[in-house]
Amino acid sequence: MNRQQLIEQIKKKKSFLCIGLDTDIELIPRFLLDFPDPVLEFNKRIIDSTYDLCVAYKPNSAFYESRGIAGWQSLIQTSQYIPAGCLRLIDAKRGDIGNTSAMYAKAFFDEKSSGMNFDAITVAPYMGIESVKPFLEFEGKWVVLLVLTSNEGGKDFQFLKIGDQCLFERVIEAANGWAGNDRMMYVVGATRSEEFKAIRKLAPDHFLLVPGVGAQGGSLQEVSRYGLNKECGLLVNSSRGIIYASKENDFAERAREEALKLQQEMSILLEEKGII
Amino acid sequence: MNRQQLIEQIKKKKSFLCIGLDTDIELIPRFLLDFPDPVLEFNKRIIDSTYDLCVAYKPNSAFYESRGIAGWQSLIQTSQYIPAGCLRLIDAKRGDIGNTSAMYAKAFFDEKSSGMNFDAITVAPYMGIESVKPFLEFEGKWVVLLVLTSNEGGKDFQFLKIGDQCLFERVIEAANGWAGNDRMMYVVGATRSEEFKAIRKLAPDHFLLVPGVGAQGGSLQEVSRYGLNKECGLLVNSSRGIIYASKENDFAERAREEALKLQQEMSILLEEKGII
Repeated sequence: MNRQQLIEQIKKKKSFLCIGLDTDIELIPRFLLDFPDPVLEFNKRIIDSTYDLCVAYKPNSAFYESRGIAGWQSLIQTSQYIPAGCLRLIDAKRGDIGNTSAMYAKAFFDEKSSGMNFDAITVAPYMGIESVKPFLEFEGKWVVLLVLTSNEGGKDFQFLKIGDQCLFERVIEAANGWAGNDRMMYVVGATRSEEFKAIRKLAPDHFLLVPGVGAQGGSLQEVSRYGLNKECGLLVNSSRGIIYASKENDFAERAREEALKLQQEMSILLEEKGII
Repeated sequence: MNRQQLIEQIKKKKSFLCIGLDTDIELIPRFLLDFPDPVLEFNKRIIDSTYDLCVAYKPNSAFYESRGIAGWQSLIQTSQYIPAGCLRLIDAKRGDIGNTSAMYAKAFFDEKSSGMNFDAITVAPYMGIESVKPFLEFEGKWVVLLVLTSNEGGKDFQFLKIGDQCLFERVIEAANGWAGNDRMMYVVGATRSEEFKAIRKLAPDHFLLVPGVGAQGGSLQEVSRYGLNKECGLLVNSSRGIIYASKENDFAERAREEALKLQQEMSILLEEKGII
């Protein structure tokens, strides 16, 4: 899914919602354990009940890896189940030297190699440009680079001062030179809305993936006030707040209700901004 | 394998060699393709021919992930095949918020969950302490934190100046507070031996994993001059230089010859330093 297609989906669905599939087999309704692949069954039902309200799904690779082979099977099947109108974003936070990042790119982008055909992947910046380039060699795929994360530990390094800039600002400046805004997005933690202004100065046109709304405490209103640009430029993620809205048999309906609340809020925000 | 056991193995084998299992199915001898799991068969033969010369094996997760389910099967079986006298180190460069890092820890440390029972994992520091802590909650396991990497792109951020220190020095200072040298090692790229002095000032007693000897151009002599401490304190990795010493049917014998050369050099270095 390219930038133009993503923007079209946002306008059509009046939503910039990304749903995080952090699916933990311990937390899904017990009746699903009777299915051959309970996690896949859970994801399918979540997707079936929300795909018209969101523009992206973001499985969190760790939750699948933790279950070994069975987990990878769930992840592969989930990636194939995400419908065409939604960005398939794998949250894997990979990053290594060139020949190794090239292998990670095959793992998540090259269906013939691995069974997975994601559109986008989260990447960690510490090892620099070589962590990113091999992913961009896959035509039309996206890198979603960690810039400012919503966790407490994000402060350990991301706010260190280099001259008059913070490290996260230096990461954006460098990464702006690695790819255009049609191939690169930035991860920006929503619990720090005051930083959005600084980020929008450096990356006015980029899409920002905001992971911290909901369980991590960010506010959609505040994120949107500072983060929305004239083509939207935001993907706001909610995981636990949607997929675990209920742990009973009605989980898919309750997930839809929560997704709908966010979509309706987003629809108003997009209108106010004159995007739709 | 705890610190004391690792030091005992180093003294017994007169070696601080780590062999990187960056096993690429495209690069292994063709006759192995007749085996049910060619990558596993390759790894087994490499391990069989070298385990008395090295103290650690380091599979590179990306190379396995790139092959989807088949690759994970090879990785799980490989992890189980590494003998008890060698540290089982997975090079996975993970790191995320707490609940996600906890899942990665299950993936690589908790055999019941995933089939894998590694002793140690490489972790990226950008997201701070929460990236590291969940791994340390597994008793006796190690975090091997990225500090200074041997790739060109490592310069993009790791050498940025924060006051009078470089970012990589700040990473060490912070991480020294997260765990002791019995649970934490640091990754230090060997192509920058001049930095070893600075690192040894901040981490005199830690084990350092040095990934860049061989194909990436580092010198064992120089690394050892600055990096060895009184209990050795180094794991020097070689991947391609050993496992692809020959691409013919004699690959395992040739791997042993290359490993032996390094082990013999290491034996002299350990003697000179008075460690054995």
